Amino acid sequence: MLVRVETLMRESVAELDIYALSLFDKLPAGKRLRAKLILKIAGEDEESVKLASIIELIHAASLLHDDVIDDSDTRRGIASINAIFGNKTAIMLGDILYSKGFSELTSFSQEISKTVADAVTMLSVGELMDVELSKSLNMNQELYFDMIYKKTAVLIEAAAKSAALLAAKDADAFALYGKNLGLAFQIIDDVLDITMDSETLGKPALHDFEEGKTTLPYIYLFESLDEVQSNKLKTLYKKRLNKEESAWIKSIMTESGAIAKSVKLAQKLGYEALGAIKVDKNEALEAVIKNMIEREF
Amino acid sequence: MLVRVETLMRESVAELDIYALSLFDKLPAGKRLRAKLILKIAGEDEESVKLASIIELIHAASLLHDDVIDDSDTRRGIASINAIFGNKTAIMLGDILYSKGFSELTSFSQEISKTVADAVTMLSVGELMDVELSKSLNMNQELYFDMIYKKTAVLIEAAAKSAALLAAKDADAFALYGKNLGLAFQIIDDVLDITMDSETLGKPALHDFEEGKTTLPYIYLFESLDEVQSNKLKTLYKKRLNKEESAWIKSIMTESGAIAKSVKLAQKLGYEALGAIKVDKNEALEAVIKNMIEREF
Repeated sequence: MLVRVETLMRESVAELDIYALSLFDKLPAGKRLRAKLILKIAGEDEESVKLASIIELIHAASLLHDDVIDDSDTRRGIASINAIFGNKTAIMLGDILYSKGFSELTSFSQEISKTVADAVTMLSVGELMDVELSKSLNMNQELYFDMIYKKTAVLIEAAAKSAALLAAKDADAFALYGKNLGLAFQIIDDVLDITMDSETLGKPALHDFEEGKTTLPYIYLFESLDEVQSNKLKTLYKKRLNKEESAWIKSIMTESGAIAKSVKLAQKLGYEALGAIKVDKNEALEAVIKNMIEREF
Repeated sequence: MLVRVETLMRESVAELDIYALSLFDKLPAGKRLRAKLILKIAGEDEESVKLASIIELIHAASLLHDDVIDDSDTRRGIASINAIFGNKTAIMLGDILYSKGFSELTSFSQEISKTVADAVTMLSVGELMDVELSKSLNMNQELYFDMIYKKTAVLIEAAAKSAALLAAKDADAFALYGKNLGLAFQIIDDVLDITMDSETLGKPALHDFEEGKTTLPYIYLFESLDEVQSNKLKTLYKKRLNKEESAWIKSIMTESGAIAKSVKLAQKLGYEALGAIKVDKNEALEAVIKNMIEREF
């Protein structure tokens, strides 16, 4: 059924412009997490496939613009559109996918289209917040959670909620599932940036801190360090780290319990997500959460 | 009433993010042509002010991204957001204004929201077409008209049509008015790039050809030149022109009748626009067209 989502996404672009299609064809498909959620929640029919293709077009657009904003040369292990064709092409293709997504969205109920459109607005604010928060050391948990909610969780929440609306299921319950899945996913992503090596990640390890992002493990870490260590860590902020410095950060992350505390929170959010959809007894949706949180970090 | 449109635009951004608002406040308001059309067609009430603010948010977003794509340092005589805060900030603010426009659009009827959303999709395709057509000398009129329809006319068409839908007026007639207004506006803009000096324009004159854009006067000109002159003109394509070269282009543009022919087409489109809304007897809408086409070029 995901094949039908891919086909519909491609057809949506094909009807607009042949050059845009040739660019679209160079995008890696990724996991299509949002599409999977929609099909697992709303069932597999024409409407749910269309909704899934819209959300994935919007998600693809946001990644295109993200990669320009973050100067990312790779996306899912292959060269990004901005790296191959330049920033301008990536911006324009992103605008096309965003607006096509919105065009198609207008065929759904006002409640669904508003849910998705509001999420995209928050997503774009989240991107701006992320960039702003990366300018100086952020140790404010509230700002971090607000940012990852907007930047990562909000579109997953909207996918789950709009699918529930489409299937006349409990929209609030599925929204909570999607939101917590998104938050947990981002926290775990932030943990893996610290605990995994570059090879396993497929991107540079310990990259967030170098980029100015003080993710949750760093916020917890700063809270637990004495002044001497805290000052030492601050000197490494936004710096390209050598082997010794990387090893030191990894070791204090573990010793201080900052990693364990972050993982524990992600797991708590994951179990809350499972609790929210308990009555639905949807094994596929449960597996998404369990695969994410019941693993080694 | 335009003040209420400005206020509503600002409130829409204010409720999202304080930093986004501070950036938004740095955008020049411009003529608000699209808002004026909406208020003149649909009358002045809460709904029409809201629709006008949405279209202007979307228009502002498209200009923000345009300026990044065209490397423009100025917009309406003042420094552009990308020039002051960098391309990334301009992209993000554009995304915020686009998505907020779409969010607010969902409160309108499906017909209105689809009209506007489809226009934005074409607008983003038009931007890509413009960039593609600027890569090499385009002498194809059909491609030029398709591009200016999408890049310039489509949102004016959608503004007029959606306002007519809101006021239960003849949507097709007002759509034709808006489309022709937009096409004529762009052709005249392309003419003024050739006939006006930099001071009057507030931007470099003869800039289009230097940028790789063969606008309608150039297409007409190439059609009328002999091989020797045509080859000479081709050597100046995408070149920074000296005084002598500029003067030569200006003189053959007039001598060949390429300017007059372009102006005549813009006027024909303008009079068609007037014809489309004749029964409405709307003096303000008629004045918009007349001020544009009954002037010196």
